[in-house]
Amino acid sequence: MSYFVEHHAEYLETLKAFLRIPSISTLPEHQPDIRRAAEFVRDQLSRAGLQHAELIEGQGNPLVYAEWLGAPGKPTLLLYGHYDVQPPDPLEEWLSPPFEPTIRNNNIYARGSADDKGQTLILINAVSGLLRQHGALPVNVRFLIEGEEEMGGEHIESYVNSRPARLQCDAAVICDTEMFAPELPTLCVGLRGIVYGELVVQSARQDLHSGVYGGAAPNALQAVSEIICALKDRSGRILIPGFYDRVVPPSAKERAAWALLPFDEENYREHEVGVKQLTGEPGIPLFERTWARPTFEVHGIRGGFIGEGAKTVIPARAVAKISTRLVADQRPEEAVAQIQAAVKAACPVGVDTEFRLIHSAPPSLVNPDNRFIAAAADALQQTFGKPTVYVRSGGSIPIVSAFESALGIPSVMMGFGLPDDNLHAPNEKLHLPNFFRGIEAVALYLEKLG
Amino acid sequence: MSYFVEHHAEYLETLKAFLRIPSISTLPEHQPDIRRAAEFVRDQLSRAGLQHAELIEGQGNPLVYAEWLGAPGKPTLLLYGHYDVQPPDPLEEWLSPPFEPTIRNNNIYARGSADDKGQTLILINAVSGLLRQHGALPVNVRFLIEGEEEMGGEHIESYVNSRPARLQCDAAVICDTEMFAPELPTLCVGLRGIVYGELVVQSARQDLHSGVYGGAAPNALQAVSEIICALKDRSGRILIPGFYDRVVPPSAKERAAWALLPFDEENYREHEVGVKQLTGEPGIPLFERTWARPTFEVHGIRGGFIGEGAKTVIPARAVAKISTRLVADQRPEEAVAQIQAAVKAACPVGVDTEFRLIHSAPPSLVNPDNRFIAAAADALQQTFGKPTVYVRSGGSIPIVSAFESALGIPSVMMGFGLPDDNLHAPNEKLHLPNFFRGIEAVALYLEKLG
Repeated sequence: MSYFVEHHAEYLETLKAFLRIPSISTLPEHQPDIRRAAEFVRDQLSRAGLQHAELIEGQGNPLVYAEWLGAPGKPTLLLYGHYDVQPPDPLEEWLSPPFEPTIRNNNIYARGSADDKGQTLILINAVSGLLRQHGALPVNVRFLIEGEEEMGGEHIESYVNSRPARLQCDAAVICDTEMFAPELPTLCVGLRGIVYGELVVQSARQDLHSGVYGGAAPNALQAVSEIICALKDRSGRILIPGFYDRVVPPSAKERAAWALLPFDEENYREHEVGVKQLTGEPGIPLFERTWARPTFEVHGIRGGFIGEGAKTVIPARAVAKISTRLVADQRPEEAVAQIQAAVKAACPVGVDTEFRLIHSAPPSLVNPDNRFIAAAADALQQTFGKPTVYVRSGGSIPIVSAFESALGIPSVMMGFGLPDDNLHAPNEKLHLPNFFRGIEAVALYLEKLG
Repeated sequence: MSYFVEHHAEYLETLKAFLRIPSISTLPEHQPDIRRAAEFVRDQLSRAGLQHAELIEGQGNPLVYAEWLGAPGKPTLLLYGHYDVQPPDPLEEWLSPPFEPTIRNNNIYARGSADDKGQTLILINAVSGLLRQHGALPVNVRFLIEGEEEMGGEHIESYVNSRPARLQCDAAVICDTEMFAPELPTLCVGLRGIVYGELVVQSARQDLHSGVYGGAAPNALQAVSEIICALKDRSGRILIPGFYDRVVPPSAKERAAWALLPFDEENYREHEVGVKQLTGEPGIPLFERTWARPTFEVHGIRGGFIGEGAKTVIPARAVAKISTRLVADQRPEEAVAQIQAAVKAACPVGVDTEFRLIHSAPPSLVNPDNRFIAAAADALQQTFGKPTVYVRSGGSIPIVSAFESALGIPSVMMGFGLPDDNLHAPNEKLHLPNFFRGIEAVALYLEKLG
């Protein structure tokens, strides 16, 4: 692997150049930067020796595609990353400017360093290194790098769902997750799904004066509160009938492995979460609560008056943004129906209510015995010198579900970020040893699969 | 009373001139109009033959004061009104411009016509008419007209609470309420008080990602909902311990009188309130619920994300604007303590919560046998030709409590508005026969007291 070590300086310069492009997808004024970033990725892929490196235009920010299919009979991998980044605010909290990559303590600080420009370059550098060393790859690869991950990833999903021939693959590799702890090689084998929507309550034709009508008229915000309390009890247990029916508990082996993960719950509570007390379903261990159990959350409640001072209005209408996280084998359509039925059953006297879906994604759970996962675990263990741990993530990566449902392929979530990388926050960083070892690990992975 | 009839045209011209001044107290750009309106009132009082007509300056919009104290041994009345008005939005819903008074169907349409410029002129015209006819009044009067009623009336309250010698009186007369039905002389003998504040919940140091921390962290909006549901049950009954202890039920006589008021509950539900079903404490008649029972309302809930689309945030902080209406003999300080204790008791695990008072006012209930009320009932009955009905209002008029607590005087709430006058709404109007008869009724009232 000395080839990869010799090229550290080159990798670092390329990474810095990529990080200097403020490709913020949620801010329209950065559209030119989005294009520059897409072209940067395309050029890197082309220079790496891949074929058909090009932008797929048409809907939203361009997708970047490239392929190398010179290994007949060998598996084909879909390599995924994204070139867009989150906005950098609040700017004043950055110790160095977000788009001037700066190295401190073996970390490179910049917006997008870990999420996901550094990790996207890990994939490209690994492939480039193998091609330059051997003139060929041990497997076939197709790159698909998107520019809308931070704004929902809608267009890549519709592209994948159109099942283009050029996406025929055996597995996807996603470098957009993190290691459980420094130096600890980690594979993520499960994601929660989501059902996100609005709970709408209408209680009167118009807002009413609480002096004149208080005692006579229903209150939309009171009704919303009552429905919310009817959907989850004070202990954290979801009360939606049937909601837990399809939930698959983690295996005894998985539970045992989670219990052995290096983790200080008290430190997590105080320094990472910042709460007085961890909460959630009683009697269920933390990782199971955050990775393998469905949740119900209220994200915002609109209606009435929230300005300064006092306005004595009985709100006629209220909208609560709510979501549930789903776990295997829950199904989004069924969850929506269950929520709708529970909302209807909980509807207070005198008001109209409904639940309107905004978006959903199914949960995802990969069997670690899958050969693509097993080879990744081997490659990571060999690179980092420690056994690979299997974790899940409580979040949702909709593209993983789309790869699964539209392309019928599992995703290998091999991430090189760290829990304290400040994703979506000031002072985002990437640990440089992880960046360099990630390149070696991915290259080794491709060799093992070949 | 033919004097008053002869002067209808003059009264109408004065009213129109007053209504043309857009004296909107909540909009700073109308400060010059506020001053014009205050000076207009002062000049009317001076022209009416009152003494010491002047602006009381110093805090906020000027108060207008004037007096006539030439009836030694006779009672002294404090005559209250306000010259400021609500903003006129939404402008496009007005059939004629809000500050161009227009007569249709014997009503004068303009912002402030009923609330409260027309009613303030009723008081001034009555006094002026008596002085011009007889050179003297049957009682002593002091006018106190404010310009901040629509923005909370804070400064008149602090002025009254400073107990200036020039406010020594035996009773206050307030023309700022309405008749229960057209042609039905009405006295309002009770007001609800209020405790308005914010329920604050803090659940974490900062907002958290619901994918990563859902199942581990408390949710401030869920907590707010749980506390709200712990303060009032689904039937409308307040659950705050001790809250009903001091509530004085209406007398059998009062209940019987309310049951006889001309009122179509179904019409009220559908056309006035605009709800599917009237709600509130089970088994308690409507007027008792809205006039003689305390209520609890949520006015707004801040926290998390309420923009378009979906953001998966677990809010770290939530603030609910809540209020309770109080009835005799509830006390605001005690109610605040009861709310604070109930909020504390209802606080979910893992969060901090508190109730912060914004403002409060005690309830007010006058004995109809009081001589100032009895004389008003007589004068109204004689003017309108029907027995006067006694009602209460579910709203709060803080100045009434201040008159009671600081000056030790009862308030006679003699109003000439109608329920469909569109106060605070487009197409505010005043029924002109009520305006003219109101002047006669007040003049007759002063004679009866003299």
